[in-house]
Amino acid sequence: MVKVAIIGASGYTGCELLRLSVQHPQIELVAVSSEKFAGKAVGEVFPSLGDTVKLTFHPLAEQEAVREADFVFSALPHSESMGVVPRLIEQGKKVVDLSADFRLRTADLYEQWYTKHTAPELLKQAVYGLPEVYREKIRHAHLVANPGCYPTAVLLALIPAVQEDLIDLKSIIIDAKSGVSGAGRNPALNSLFAEANEGVKPYKIGTHQHTPEIEQELGVIAQQQVSLLFTPHLMPMNRGILLTAYATPKTSIAEKDVWSIYHTFYQNERFVRMCPVNTVPSTHQVKGSNYCDIGIVVDSRTNRLIIVAAIDNLLKGASGQAIQNMNIMAGLEEDSGITPLPLFP
Amino acid sequence: MVKVAIIGASGYTGCELLRLSVQHPQIELVAVSSEKFAGKAVGEVFPSLGDTVKLTFHPLAEQEAVREADFVFSALPHSESMGVVPRLIEQGKKVVDLSADFRLRTADLYEQWYTKHTAPELLKQAVYGLPEVYREKIRHAHLVANPGCYPTAVLLALIPAVQEDLIDLKSIIIDAKSGVSGAGRNPALNSLFAEANEGVKPYKIGTHQHTPEIEQELGVIAQQQVSLLFTPHLMPMNRGILLTAYATPKTSIAEKDVWSIYHTFYQNERFVRMCPVNTVPSTHQVKGSNYCDIGIVVDSRTNRLIIVAAIDNLLKGASGQAIQNMNIMAGLEEDSGITPLPLFP
Amino acid sequence: MVKVAIIGASGYTGCELLRLSVQHPQIELVAVSSEKFAGKAVGEVFPSLGDTVKLTFHPLAEQEAVREADFVFSALPHSESMGVVPRLIEQGKKVVDLSADFRLRTADLYEQWYTKHTAPELLKQAVYGLPEVYREKIRHAHLVANPGCYPTAVLLALIPAVQEDLIDLKSIIIDAKSGVSGAGRNPALNSLFAEANEGVKPYKIGTHQHTPEIEQELGVIAQQQVSLLFTPHLMPMNRGILLTAYATPKTSIAEKDVWSIYHTFYQNERFVRMCPVNTVPSTHQVKGSNYCDIGIVVDSRTNRLIIVAAIDNLLKGASGQAIQNMNIMAGLEEDSGITPLPLFP
Amino acid sequence: MVKVAIIGASGYTGCELLRLSVQHPQIELVAVSSEKFAGKAVGEVFPSLGDTVKLTFHPLAEQEAVREADFVFSALPHSESMGVVPRLIEQGKKVVDLSADFRLRTADLYEQWYTKHTAPELLKQAVYGLPEVYREKIRHAHLVANPGCYPTAVLLALIPAVQEDLIDLKSIIIDAKSGVSGAGRNPALNSLFAEANEGVKPYKIGTHQHTPEIEQELGVIAQQQVSLLFTPHLMPMNRGILLTAYATPKTSIAEKDVWSIYHTFYQNERFVRMCPVNTVPSTHQVKGSNYCDIGIVVDSRTNRLIIVAAIDNLLKGASGQAIQNMNIMAGLEEDSGITPLPLFP
Repeated sequence: MVKVAIIGASGYTGCELLRLSVQHPQIELVAVSSEKFAGKAVGEVFPSLGDTVKLTFHPLAEQEAVREADFVFSALPHSESMGVVPRLIEQGKKVVDLSADFRLRTADLYEQWYTKHTAPELLKQAVYGLPEVYREKIRHAHLVANPGCYPTAVLLALIPAVQEDLIDLKSIIIDAKSGVSGAGRNPALNSLFAEANEGVKPYKIGTHQHTPEIEQELGVIAQQQVSLLFTPHLMPMNRGILLTAYATPKTSIAEKDVWSIYHTFYQNERFVRMCPVNTVPSTHQVKGSNYCDIGIVVDSRTNRLIIVAAIDNLLKGASGQAIQNMNIMAGLEEDSGITPLPLFP
Repeated sequence: MVKVAIIGASGYTGCELLRLSVQHPQIELVAVSSEKFAGKAVGEVFPSLGDTVKLTFHPLAEQEAVREADFVFSALPHSESMGVVPRLIEQGKKVVDLSADFRLRTADLYEQWYTKHTAPELLKQAVYGLPEVYREKIRHAHLVANPGCYPTAVLLALIPAVQEDLIDLKSIIIDAKSGVSGAGRNPALNSLFAEANEGVKPYKIGTHQHTPEIEQELGVIAQQQVSLLFTPHLMPMNRGILLTAYATPKTSIAEKDVWSIYHTFYQNERFVRMCPVNTVPSTHQVKGSNYCDIGIVVDSRTNRLIIVAAIDNLLKGASGQAIQNMNIMAGLEEDSGITPLPLFP
Repeated sequence: MVKVAIIGASGYTGCELLRLSVQHPQIELVAVSSEKFAGKAVGEVFPSLGDTVKLTFHPLAEQEAVREADFVFSALPHSESMGVVPRLIEQGKKVVDLSADFRLRTADLYEQWYTKHTAPELLKQAVYGLPEVYREKIRHAHLVANPGCYPTAVLLALIPAVQEDLIDLKSIIIDAKSGVSGAGRNPALNSLFAEANEGVKPYKIGTHQHTPEIEQELGVIAQQQVSLLFTPHLMPMNRGILLTAYATPKTSIAEKDVWSIYHTFYQNERFVRMCPVNTVPSTHQVKGSNYCDIGIVVDSRTNRLIIVAAIDNLLKGASGQAIQNMNIMAGLEEDSGITPLPLFP
Repeated sequence: MVKVAIIGASGYTGCELLRLSVQHPQIELVAVSSEKFAGKAVGEVFPSLGDTVKLTFHPLAEQEAVREADFVFSALPHSESMGVVPRLIEQGKKVVDLSADFRLRTADLYEQWYTKHTAPELLKQAVYGLPEVYREKIRHAHLVANPGCYPTAVLLALIPAVQEDLIDLKSIIIDAKSGVSGAGRNPALNSLFAEANEGVKPYKIGTHQHTPEIEQELGVIAQQQVSLLFTPHLMPMNRGILLTAYATPKTSIAEKDVWSIYHTFYQNERFVRMCPVNTVPSTHQVKGSNYCDIGIVVDSRTNRLIIVAAIDNLLKGASGQAIQNMNIMAGLEEDSGITPLPLFP
């Protein structure tokens, strides 16, 4: 059994980590921290979990609680996590960090999109936790930076095309649609039911903080700098990210050939499913699961490759992938505890 | 391994039976029937299931497919199921029938609320599949009539109060709220998104076909005839039934005492969870699980006992309970394959 | 033209008052106050209104802005309104107050359910703004207390039955369902999209602060004290209240007779529509309008009268009724500015 | 008063035409046809309209009903309308046709995307009913082809940029998101609540039948052939289209300059609102109104112009625009009967 602590567990990713951990056959949950809910039983804060988690939230400062753990999931917000993770690493714990703090490879880039980095020395050893690309590095990592929800979907959608040099890198446009849980559990005007329901709106067009993360990772694959336009939209639904990515093929290519390339690329991947030729995914078909479903369209009339990807933002886009990373780091079966099929409808 | 066939598996309860069966450690799925989708692969009809079910829907008439099974779930519509089940029983198969065809104990009552019964001889041997009441009978049954979604919630909410003689049986009013998946997957005007979304409406007030089922079962517990008012409402959500049951206590009783009676009644039940004293459930906290969550309120000002119950209509209200019944009939662990915690949000 | 100011106009009822005022043929809007949005143009805060309101929100303390008005709508929160309204009345302005501060007839009752009343001297002169009952008093009032959203629906549903002495007053149970806009525009955990969407939950069972308002007004009609059980539920929709009221008829009565009594009672009312015999309303059919639609069911099997009423909580339940009251107070056509038909779907 | 008939009025655009006509100060509604609901009173089919429309649906074959009308709105489905409209034109009636039958300028193009055209002689005289472009032609037209919902939003979003030659015409990508009412009121699997709710999915990528209509009209403006990629998505909401259009500027241009060009272009248009600089619209802010709201973003990092437009698909995207066209054809104020502000939330 792996002894696990979850810190900053009061939001939706925290709830999902709790749910997955409790059901994971090799996890023993030893501590959960939350400032907001310190002193409350987990089941009181998340009635869905009932009495399955027999723990009480403690303030993070009470380090003894975490001390017992071999493994820590940090679901702290961006900029807070980097204040805590260095100490955990020093104490010899393995960490999967769900914030953005260790995803960018240079402190400069981080500062440009977020704030000044206070633990730049850890950036070098942090491994970007996209198992489909970095599985071997994750296996030996002490600190894994769990990818953002949007980047997970974008990268899985684009990496095969970029790696196989199918598309003009300057042509990439990503139109993403996300459920409201992606905005977190903190009360904010835009996340109110009556503000988000029955409407749709883009936000942070070209300026979303996930842009550098996407460009960095595509750049590694492409072995050159990549700039792309990323436009997220807030959707009236709880969970799910749908990604519609547009790019211009370098040379004319048939839909079925692109599909085959993708199919081959992902044939051994447990959590990437290619939709049948001629079909594209809906977020309906991944909800509650760790899958990323991908569909391919080539519009020969306008010479465009369209890649559609769907994930559950709280699973493959956050907590499910975090467990996947932990499984790899701990030498367990990669899908341990994250096998449930999607819940439809 | 139990060899299982699912017939009439093209709707939401069918999809849910497929999902649960595939993930069930002791089920081997050998056949799935559907007239509408005959010839199609399961994953084509339900993309969420991907290629996990390696079967193709066959027409029911092709009996060979079902012949292999030891166990059959019938998700055929009311009045169709009774045309098929007798043959299955004759062939020695164990059957859990999800239709209403074998829930009422007399052919007369069935005819009054549905249509003429064509297999009345089976009504005697059919066991009403509410494990919390009939577990022992289910264990030895060949034919289990899986309860309706509403009756499951109503009975779990009211049985302790009726059994302990806490309430005036004439005073019961049930105000139920159901998600749209309860209306099935057949295209119908009232189930259209733009008709059901952003609104709420009661329907079949006092005349819903689940009324006799509820009254019959409460009557068994009360050992007298029970008549109650049942008012269902169609809610703009996919899954979930919330039940607000009102009754007048026979004598003044404290909220905590009612709570204790319920707590004791259900203390050994795997799938009934009492909400903490002073709290009532939301359907949010049971979605995707086989739980029925129950909360108790006594309003001493107006001398009313209010019992609130929440279930996922496709799980404890249909397919989850069907698996629970099968587990009992097959001598397996009662919760085998239906342990997943609720998905929140 | 009536010169109108709206104070505390930053929430949903405020937005609705603005929308209705701008479109009202006899209103000239002269001032809008909001602490939160002071200094911002109305169209910046509510993009739906565009540049139709050529005003900027000012802080309430800047009395000059309001001074110009002959008529003030106060959409301030409960307990704040009573701090401001006395001054307005002194200045000779007519006021429709949308808070609860002047709805209860005694300071004691107010203190019991809210807090200490700071302007008890105004309670006597305040008129309860339900035009269907108090039209003549409203016509001469200086201060009208606009009814709560739930009470509006409950009273319109029950008053004919109570007035005609049809029901046992001890038997009344009200099961109400409300859209999330009823909880206001202040960020709160329970109003978050992911908390309210895809689920339903009762709250404040028997203890909701609208209970005394309902009981007070039914008591006036009944000429005796009325106690009833009121159970509100939070629904995953923006707008709308659906009310399912249950009562025991004093003597056996046919559905069509009750319907006729109601039909006669409301035949001259512009904003109450009786549903055809044998039908009940959905909130869909009143959204965006000032209507209250009412349906009647008698379940003779259990001897219960069920009255179903639907309103748009922001219109007949708040701002639409406020305009209706203002129209009456100002001697205008009662429906001036609030004639739009419901928006379906 | 203009005597108006609405034929094929049983769907959502029909309901909206009825609502708008009843409230229109210069319309006298003389006939409404529907095969499905023939014999039923309008208020029975659409309870939201109550008894405001004192007409009964009649079958289309009963021509006498329509004969009285000077003006006909045809809301018949594609391919049915062209079987009926020629006779109406012969009878001297003015017609606004809401189907696609008279939108494309050649019978060949129509046949390519729909079916064989049976009234090609009318294509020449039909005027494309986008008032912002064809106002003068509409004024003298006998037959106006009301634009599709998507084309309305796309054309208003792109025409200024195309006319001012700001963008590379080969670079246009349109990612559109539509509410479910756009799919009509006919029961279909994809329009079911549980299929559409809580998910999002693109459909008909590059092959949607509105593509030729968009390309035709942009081609007229550009005076050259235009090919673009159009990707619609089905959204879990009742009403609204949000359009995110991407194009590459021909030369580097500042956001505020593009905004100014658009602002000037639309400054005299009653129903196009430019969002303030630096803001983009949500469908929330147009729901229930005839507005098209437009926002401009230039992403200089990737050299892309992004235009975001929002309409209510049933108003500016269908019935509202139809009334606007009728107003122009009948010499009325262009906004008569379609002035209501958006309903938020």
